[in-house]
Amino acid sequence: MIDRTVKMGSNVKIGEYVIIERNAVIGDNVTIGHHVVIKEDSRIGNNVTINDHSVLGQTPVANKKMARKPPKYLSSLVIGDDVKIGSQCVIYRGTTIMDGVLIGDLAAIREKVTIGNNSIVGRNVMVENNTQIGQYATIQTSSYVTAYMVIEDYVFIGPCLSTSNDKYIGTRNGELKGPILRKGAKIGNNASILPGIIIGEKATVGAGAVVTKDVKPNEVVVGNPARPIHR
Amino acid sequence: MIDRTVKMGSNVKIGEYVIIERNAVIGDNVTIGHHVVIKEDSRIGNNVTINDHSVLGQTPVANKKMARKPPKYLSSLVIGDDVKIGSQCVIYRGTTIMDGVLIGDLAAIREKVTIGNNSIVGRNVMVENNTQIGQYATIQTSSYVTAYMVIEDYVFIGPCLSTSNDKYIGTRNGELKGPILRKGAKIGNNASILPGIIIGEKATVGAGAVVTKDVKPNEVVVGNPARPIHR
Amino acid sequence: MIDRTVKMGSNVKIGEYVIIERNAVIGDNVTIGHHVVIKEDSRIGNNVTINDHSVLGQTPVANKKMARKPPKYLSSLVIGDDVKIGSQCVIYRGTTIMDGVLIGDLAAIREKVTIGNNSIVGRNVMVENNTQIGQYATIQTSSYVTAYMVIEDYVFIGPCLSTSNDKYIGTRNGELKGPILRKGAKIGNNASILPGIIIGEKATVGAGAVVTKDVKPNEVVVGNPARPIHR
Repeated sequence: MIDRTVKMGSNVKIGEYVIIERNAVIGDNVTIGHHVVIKEDSRIGNNVTINDHSVLGQTPVANKKMARKPPKYLSSLVIGDDVKIGSQCVIYRGTTIMDGVLIGDLAAIREKVTIGNNSIVGRNVMVENNTQIGQYATIQTSSYVTAYMVIEDYVFIGPCLSTSNDKYIGTRNGELKGPILRKGAKIGNNASILPGIIIGEKATVGAGAVVTKDVKPNEVVVGNPARPIHR
Repeated sequence: MIDRTVKMGSNVKIGEYVIIERNAVIGDNVTIGHHVVIKEDSRIGNNVTINDHSVLGQTPVANKKMARKPPKYLSSLVIGDDVKIGSQCVIYRGTTIMDGVLIGDLAAIREKVTIGNNSIVGRNVMVENNTQIGQYATIQTSSYVTAYMVIEDYVFIGPCLSTSNDKYIGTRNGELKGPILRKGAKIGNNASILPGIIIGEKATVGAGAVVTKDVKPNEVVVGNPARPIHR
Repeated sequence: MIDRTVKMGSNVKIGEYVIIERNAVIGDNVTIGHHVVIKEDSRIGNNVTINDHSVLGQTPVANKKMARKPPKYLSSLVIGDDVKIGSQCVIYRGTTIMDGVLIGDLAAIREKVTIGNNSIVGRNVMVENNTQIGQYATIQTSSYVTAYMVIEDYVFIGPCLSTSNDKYIGTRNGELKGPILRKGAKIGNNASILPGIIIGEKATVGAGAVVTKDVKPNEVVVGNPARPIHR
């Protein structure tokens, strides 16, 4: 079901049972898998591949308990050229995904996120709202990227990273502050990074480390709590 | 494909390629996204929103290796009023979700689970069978809630919690006992809580803590293994 | 939409909005849920159940940043007899799943993986490429199995395992080496196992342990870093 207001590029391949809602714009040479849903206003670049069952352009919701309601107005979802999106993904309105990005199966990306050129968001990765991801960054499978987090260029995140942004754990006295991972930082698998922590340029966080203090540039930290090691 | 035995409320919006199986009951003012599957006997309240591709009312399965087979008879899935369900969720028969609950995208909830009013089950959260969750509880993204666990009212669980219920790790000598999180307990991101552990009222578990002993009410524990800190 | 080249067994039940692409082979007594996609060349055995929205036989992709491109030629996906596959799964071409395996909802399994008879791959488990899993193994919910990993027969993995295979964390100087879990090893929930680590026969890794050194047969390790305990 393709709405008659959709602007369709040339040489677009569309699978079975696809829905493209009103005012969506689809570039040239795009491949859209089976059962894909492209919500209203979404803008898809050229040479993009979207695998089966993915949902693009979703609108956030809230319930009574949520202290922070999602914004009422959000710009369109914008997907650049040469982006590849896996199966069963959910990507929200108000987000921009730049050229050459790869997004794995079963990943979800919330509203107001920016992902820079040629970065990789792995399978089953969850990216929360208002997060900035640079270019040539890698976020491996099943990692969790909290809201208001910054991941700079060339950062490499192993599988199963856990992050948080609320030092009062839901008691709402404070501002949400996600961690900041500076350029070229490397994070081992299943590390935990606490709210507002800064990981310096080219620093390394070991697998399973629980990072409770800032890490200096080029420093290597391991353990729970994480402490520097001297090499 | 809507079965002719379905009882449909008034003012129901239904997306494309939706399936509603026999004997399902849909309340008033319900919004059903594209490609949603509502299995037989499911009962959906009023003002419920179900996003694209979610599957409601699934029946559990087993293979030869599973020691504990799922029950042969399960009551219907019951969803209360004002519930919001994300995209790509899977929710089983025999479970009750009360009014005002929010369930994030890509979450799965097994059979015989109860979730109280206005609680939040985050994106990609997995809730196993026979678990009780109170009201106004929050379970953040990518957390894992094991079977036979109890989460009381106002508990707040950060992202990536891991829990378990089998102290013999699959050797089957013992009963499954999930952790019990008492009223108002707060759990930091990526904590691990062992089988049968009780986290007392308003206690706090730090990020990345591995909790091997009960935690007293109001106590704060951190580390691996988790130990109390004095503030 | 079932391609006319598909070889269909007898007594096959097919849900609504299903796609079966060319040259797929479906055995006898197979049950295919709603919105399932079976990609070209996939071979499904007898008595197999596939739940709603799953995608079988997907082809891997890459972007510019990925150092290791997926192989250009991959054999068919082969699924044995009596296999049960949950909802919202993604399983790739070039993988073999043997008889009696159970795969939970929202699981993803990459190319060139073998899973032995009667093993269990839990809900939301991610299995990367080129991994060998033996028979009667259990991998519980939300665990992460890295590429080039070996899981032998009767291994039991609790929920939320994290593994990795790249000791240089993305800097590409070395070969990828996944951990090896020997026969009957038991892994507690949320453990982290580093690249190339060998967990000996019937050894036990405690919940939340960070395993940085090989573990001897029958040994029990806990902590961060993991150390043996004497019982």
